[in-house]
Amino acid sequence: MSKISAPHWLFASAILGSSLLSGCAAPPRTPLAGATQQIKSSAPVEPYRSAAEIIEAAPASDWRPLEVDRLLVMQLAAGTVVLELAPQFAPKHVENLKLLVQKGYFDGLAIVRSQDNFVVQWGDPNAGTEQRRSLGQASAKLAPEFERPIGDLSFTRLPDADGFAPEVGFSEGFPVGRDPSTNTTWIAHCYGVLGAGRDTASDSGNGAELYVVSGHAPRQLDRNISVVGRVVLGMEWLSTRVRGPAPMGFYTDASLRTPIQAVRLASELPIEAQPALEALRTDSASFTALIEARRNRRDSWYKRPAGHIDLCNVPLPVRAKPRPN
Amino acid sequence: MSKISAPHWLFASAILGSSLLSGCAAPPRTPLAGATQQIKSSAPVEPYRSAAEIIEAAPASDWRPLEVDRLLVMQLAAGTVVLELAPQFAPKHVENLKLLVQKGYFDGLAIVRSQDNFVVQWGDPNAGTEQRRSLGQASAKLAPEFERPIGDLSFTRLPDADGFAPEVGFSEGFPVGRDPSTNTTWIAHCYGVLGAGRDTASDSGNGAELYVVSGHAPRQLDRNISVVGRVVLGMEWLSTRVRGPAPMGFYTDASLRTPIQAVRLASELPIEAQPALEALRTDSASFTALIEARRNRRDSWYKRPAGHIDLCNVPLPVRAKPRPN
Repeated sequence: MSKISAPHWLFASAILGSSLLSGCAAPPRTPLAGATQQIKSSAPVEPYRSAAEIIEAAPASDWRPLEVDRLLVMQLAAGTVVLELAPQFAPKHVENLKLLVQKGYFDGLAIVRSQDNFVVQWGDPNAGTEQRRSLGQASAKLAPEFERPIGDLSFTRLPDADGFAPEVGFSEGFPVGRDPSTNTTWIAHCYGVLGAGRDTASDSGNGAELYVVSGHAPRQLDRNISVVGRVVLGMEWLSTRVRGPAPMGFYTDASLRTPIQAVRLASELPIEAQPALEALRTDSASFTALIEARRNRRDSWYKRPAGHIDLCNVPLPVRAKPRPN
Repeated sequence: MSKISAPHWLFASAILGSSLLSGCAAPPRTPLAGATQQIKSSAPVEPYRSAAEIIEAAPASDWRPLEVDRLLVMQLAAGTVVLELAPQFAPKHVENLKLLVQKGYFDGLAIVRSQDNFVVQWGDPNAGTEQRRSLGQASAKLAPEFERPIGDLSFTRLPDADGFAPEVGFSEGFPVGRDPSTNTTWIAHCYGVLGAGRDTASDSGNGAELYVVSGHAPRQLDRNISVVGRVVLGMEWLSTRVRGPAPMGFYTDASLRTPIQAVRLASELPIEAQPALEALRTDSASFTALIEARRNRRDSWYKRPAGHIDLCNVPLPVRAKPRPN
């Protein structure tokens, strides 16, 4: 195999972006002898398993189905984007967004913005004008859902320090920050996270204008805007949109917009068209092992395991549901 | 102005990606009253200036020219990418890369990989085969330059904690980590950073295969590979490349590769074709003010300034040199 088609240096970081797993066959890899002395973690050193190996070995109980009444399917000419909604974190925004989707609000609208290393955004190009599309029964204003009480959400805490939040980790499949002193938690703006755009007023977001993080995590947005989900499939159809002009990336040339053919709630698609996906449970032992495998890589390529992982570097594996035997 | 063409919520994060500034006219913005009580910084509170205002007001002495003997110009059909080399950090790799460029090594080669939320990579599609292009006088192997002694490099330290390095900040225009206990420093893998790919052996990188970070900073690569520069212009022509198949993003379909028309050292271009650019000095007062303006945003959109900034969230402004009066 040529150096360029599978160099080892590429493998170790290669399993996934933060949002998507498909198949995940393990490329050739050489077990490493002698690197363990470089590991900074205080965890007991067991035979190293790569992220791909951990995912492949995860028992069925470590996976959760992505429920079709919480999935949006967005059809672009280039491909299909699947988004998991987060009613646990933004119930009013998710409800409003579902109302919009059910009336076909987004059908024929467009991706109107792509700012390099920041966000891709879609909605009504005529928003704010007389020609804007009606929101129908959906609300134009919503009380902000920037954070929520901690409550009984599952929480797999990262031991790694984070500058933006007192605690970080994963709740119900989402990367989150938490502040026990205020009893609040919120979804963090990691790559692939879906938010509801708003204007200056805190209550001006309603789900009719949506953005997905497409660059280095803009965590300064955390707790400033309502996060409503994340991309679980097809992120590449959003992240590769041609960039709009500086400074903000809105297309001033309308011909550069990407038309949205349709957005549907997965549960309202014909059964055979519904995505059958499952996600690795973030409260599972496999997920904890995956985090450690990525925090300290001990394959033959890495000479110095990092001893640390950023919240937004942790992959959130998604795969097609295995077919019944 | 329509909500969608310039919503305030977009502005605050909009000045720049991490790598590129052009023009940067300040969009309309409303001064904020009443938000200062939310600021977490212990810095004295002065009238807030946005990043754009700070950049616009920076004196000429706060800018440094991007020297043409340290700039690579990469021509793709879609546009031009300009990269600043970092001989301060990887002198041998930069020298080798220059030898390759001077013999036209990259002309007619291709972008061979685009992995979502990770890297875009280019080189010889036939590397590792009999049909590979000769490296000419350039070396096939080089001693690793994963880090260097701290020496007399300028250093603007971020007060913000970082999980990957004892200290982080900016040296000579690059985002860096530092470890005073080992007297070492290295360029951090932020968005837009340019590295020299290698195989498993530490000395197998040579500059003939290059990658640019195109996703959330994969800091686990720090000190594991030789970093040779960063993109200063045209990042969008790399970041929007169609993604190759999982898990690693190499194009198995050769027709998806992006041909490289030419790569030239800027100093070897005709004078009228040389990029005339300058970068905000990272050891200037304006840069320090810029960091604080981004750490704690106090415009009308932000309800909760973050009180923290990640090394890879700090913009590194580049602009066209002002014309002489």
